Amino acid sequence: METAALKNPLSEGLRLERTPEPCTVIIFGASGDLTMRKLIPALFSLAQQNLLPASFAVVGAARSPFSHDEFRDKMKSAIEEFADVGPQDANLVDSFVSGIYYNPSDPGKPDSFQNLDQLLSQIDKDRGTSGNRLFYLSTPPSLYAPICKALGQVQLHDSKGWTRIIIEKPFGRDLDSMRALNKDVLSVFEEDQVYRIDHYLGKETVQNIMVLRFANSIFEPLWSHHYIEHVQITAAESLGVEKRGGYYEQAGALRDMIQNHLFQVFTLVAMEPPVSLASNDVRDEKTKVVKAIRSFSHEEVPHFARRGQYGAGSINGKPVKGYREEDQVDPQSSTDTYAAVKLCVDNWRWAGTPFYLRSAKRMPKRISEIAIQFKRVPHGLFVDTEASSPTEPNRLIVRVQPDEGITVKFRAKLPGQAINIRNVNMDFDYGTSFGKKSPEAYERLLLDAMLGDSTLFARGDMVEASWELLMPVLDVWSEAAGDKFPNYAAGSWGPKESDDWLGSEERQWRRP
Amino acid sequence: METAALKNPLSEGLRLERTPEPCTVIIFGASGDLTMRKLIPALFSLAQQNLLPASFAVVGAARSPFSHDEFRDKMKSAIEEFADVGPQDANLVDSFVSGIYYNPSDPGKPDSFQNLDQLLSQIDKDRGTSGNRLFYLSTPPSLYAPICKALGQVQLHDSKGWTRIIIEKPFGRDLDSMRALNKDVLSVFEEDQVYRIDHYLGKETVQNIMVLRFANSIFEPLWSHHYIEHVQITAAESLGVEKRGGYYEQAGALRDMIQNHLFQVFTLVAMEPPVSLASNDVRDEKTKVVKAIRSFSHEEVPHFARRGQYGAGSINGKPVKGYREEDQVDPQSSTDTYAAVKLCVDNWRWAGTPFYLRSAKRMPKRISEIAIQFKRVPHGLFVDTEASSPTEPNRLIVRVQPDEGITVKFRAKLPGQAINIRNVNMDFDYGTSFGKKSPEAYERLLLDAMLGDSTLFARGDMVEASWELLMPVLDVWSEAAGDKFPNYAAGSWGPKESDDWLGSEERQWRRP
Repeated sequence: METAALKNPLSEGLRLERTPEPCTVIIFGASGDLTMRKLIPALFSLAQQNLLPASFAVVGAARSPFSHDEFRDKMKSAIEEFADVGPQDANLVDSFVSGIYYNPSDPGKPDSFQNLDQLLSQIDKDRGTSGNRLFYLSTPPSLYAPICKALGQVQLHDSKGWTRIIIEKPFGRDLDSMRALNKDVLSVFEEDQVYRIDHYLGKETVQNIMVLRFANSIFEPLWSHHYIEHVQITAAESLGVEKRGGYYEQAGALRDMIQNHLFQVFTLVAMEPPVSLASNDVRDEKTKVVKAIRSFSHEEVPHFARRGQYGAGSINGKPVKGYREEDQVDPQSSTDTYAAVKLCVDNWRWAGTPFYLRSAKRMPKRISEIAIQFKRVPHGLFVDTEASSPTEPNRLIVRVQPDEGITVKFRAKLPGQAINIRNVNMDFDYGTSFGKKSPEAYERLLLDAMLGDSTLFARGDMVEASWELLMPVLDVWSEAAGDKFPNYAAGSWGPKESDDWLGSEERQWRRP
Repeated sequence: METAALKNPLSEGLRLERTPEPCTVIIFGASGDLTMRKLIPALFSLAQQNLLPASFAVVGAARSPFSHDEFRDKMKSAIEEFADVGPQDANLVDSFVSGIYYNPSDPGKPDSFQNLDQLLSQIDKDRGTSGNRLFYLSTPPSLYAPICKALGQVQLHDSKGWTRIIIEKPFGRDLDSMRALNKDVLSVFEEDQVYRIDHYLGKETVQNIMVLRFANSIFEPLWSHHYIEHVQITAAESLGVEKRGGYYEQAGALRDMIQNHLFQVFTLVAMEPPVSLASNDVRDEKTKVVKAIRSFSHEEVPHFARRGQYGAGSINGKPVKGYREEDQVDPQSSTDTYAAVKLCVDNWRWAGTPFYLRSAKRMPKRISEIAIQFKRVPHGLFVDTEASSPTEPNRLIVRVQPDEGITVKFRAKLPGQAINIRNVNMDFDYGTSFGKKSPEAYERLLLDAMLGDSTLFARGDMVEASWELLMPVLDVWSEAAGDKFPNYAAGSWGPKESDDWLGSEERQWRRP
């Protein structure tokens, strides 16, 4: 087998990794969880891989009154706790932390942003960061617009180098709020400066979808309504809302997962081949396929969506409480912890082949996957001999997490004297094939933003199109009473209503 | 993952195995190697699996003057040596052996065939075998016609039950001898009584080709010149001619492997879907695709075939001698131990997609496989990022032996910050997937013949068509001097001439 190239993928021909220009990364919401758990560890990991520019600094910005050194200590602890630090990294930790600064920043206090401006100029002088700046908004969404305005007031949106701004999700909570936020952000920044982050797009398996489709000749010929019966994109968690009940009450599964993450995954699966890999060529195609989704009215919502909310149940044999009993959750809450939507793509490629997007909490296990289900064979030559074994259609499964990989499910002859046909799997597993751990999504996305590559970030028009499509669902769900909840037990695969819905279309939810 | 059906494929829904009607199997050439090593152990294995009819007998027939008991002892030893016998099988061995008989038989002595007739009638009475008879010609080919005639003279071609005859390869050594033999056989038997055996067709992976193609919806859409660049069918052995130099001098690789085994495999890969699985429907399609192969003249042979003969070399570090130094081999022999042919199938499905068939002895390893090589992607989106890693086309490999299974070779993104694309494998392995050993090819074929299912046997018209096609090669090779031999070293992948030939077509032989 010609696996020579695989045996040691790191030893040969490895494409030179890209290194960004000198720059400063400014994190708003610097005292928050995401900064400590993900952002600082991701930047440190890039430093370990020698992927940061030689001239580099981080500035933490939040309301709290830390000194530089207090903040450095805090970030050092975060690195030690959440990054992959070995004994050989002691010097690197120290030098990385010495490049971290802090500026107390409150958009209500214009002085604090003038101080930030001065600090950044000083850092440019001291560390040679050339006026290149990457702002990262990791605050509550209510602060996105005020911070953008405050940055604009001190001209920080336009330095002598490049200036970019990463905005964390949620980007709006409905069509109107999204449009208002977009207007506020774009009154200060240009669209090409804005990086709406979706960490799902940083996941290896998600990035691999385009490679799978367009660097291979065997998948694309099958990739249409001619051969695909339907597609299921699932993001299931076994966790409940944990300590985020307050946030989740305002969100729900549709807003928290489907409108952003699963829509992004959908676009990569469904889009046409882009003209090139240039970020706007790719994002043009993604927006195009979202616009091709059939819109539906409020009355039609029952044909296109189902929701649920978990009650008490058990996960792995351990009893867990229902959503309405969780901290900071209204005992009469009608928030969806299970949401599923059907997307009909009205274009030449996909007419008649629906995409089902499903996300939920308190499922039996944590799994994210894309399941391409193929049509049955047009003529059942082996139908007589298959009576005893349930015939499964062929499937191609892309496992996003955990156990990243690809499985093709097909049918083969059971060894023996008769023609007994069985469902079998052909597997590709990232871990065993590459022996290299997939990097954290945030590493890739921070690096791309520093490099000015926005391919893996959401463009405003696509975000708007996805909200536009989903508004009838949000409207109907917010108007309807939530008193049928809970309608699925924690640890089950969701509400019977949803199973029945797919059943009525002669399809079945996967239980992967 | 929905592998429930796989976890214990034997415990549920296993289709009832088919059991043949009562019958007697008569083996000519009963004192030979094949009888002891393959035929008797295969019949015994069927007995172990309860797949033989309750009324069953075996009659050995050869020139040697064994008594029934002498022959039984000999067969008992064969079972003990070559079958998979456990301590629990002692009774079964005894009862199986007690159903074995012997009749000294010489087509030159008509009496001996009258004795055979009487013995068979007696067995029908004693054991209830109902006059159903399966003759098996496992003698030197020169005896095939005389035995058929002798059987006809005592009316043994037509008993009160069914009568069938299995004929071992080689079925002729060129077009004329094949036609002569066929005429002799068919002057006694009807075509539907004749089972020309090709043990390759009994191999699990070969049988699985039709299941793969026609019980799945994902392969057939790719199965044409639109997506397949070319196909390589390889049967490589690391052994030399061993003790069979005398036979091999008269055969060569083209006759020994390509005209029969590899042509059969080719037909299963290339044929159109049959109307049904009925044996003549399948064999109609196989014959059709052989007839669609472009014929070529003597002058054109260099465009369609290459040959070679091994010289001294080494296998696994051990020095081995050249073919001309082997026992019973002419020191000036021009016999081919390496043969390769190109088949251009002039039909709607395959125009422009050649099939290369290759077989040789003294290759670096023993491997039989079908390699479907797909065309490259029509537009290289990732071409810039692939410069550092040699781009392999997608391939689907069906491994016939050893390690039976299927591998799809495709390209995936190497985990990391850049788009590094690598060749990776997706695997399906018979052994690990089914946990059930593949049965010996002869078991399946003997059982099918007893059942009257001739699907996996070669029909006369197809055999004739394959000889017809290959005659120019045989003619040219027999006329040309063999003095360029040896042209490849034992333990290498064959002659440079053959590599250059494929190179001139911008293709490469696989070195699996």
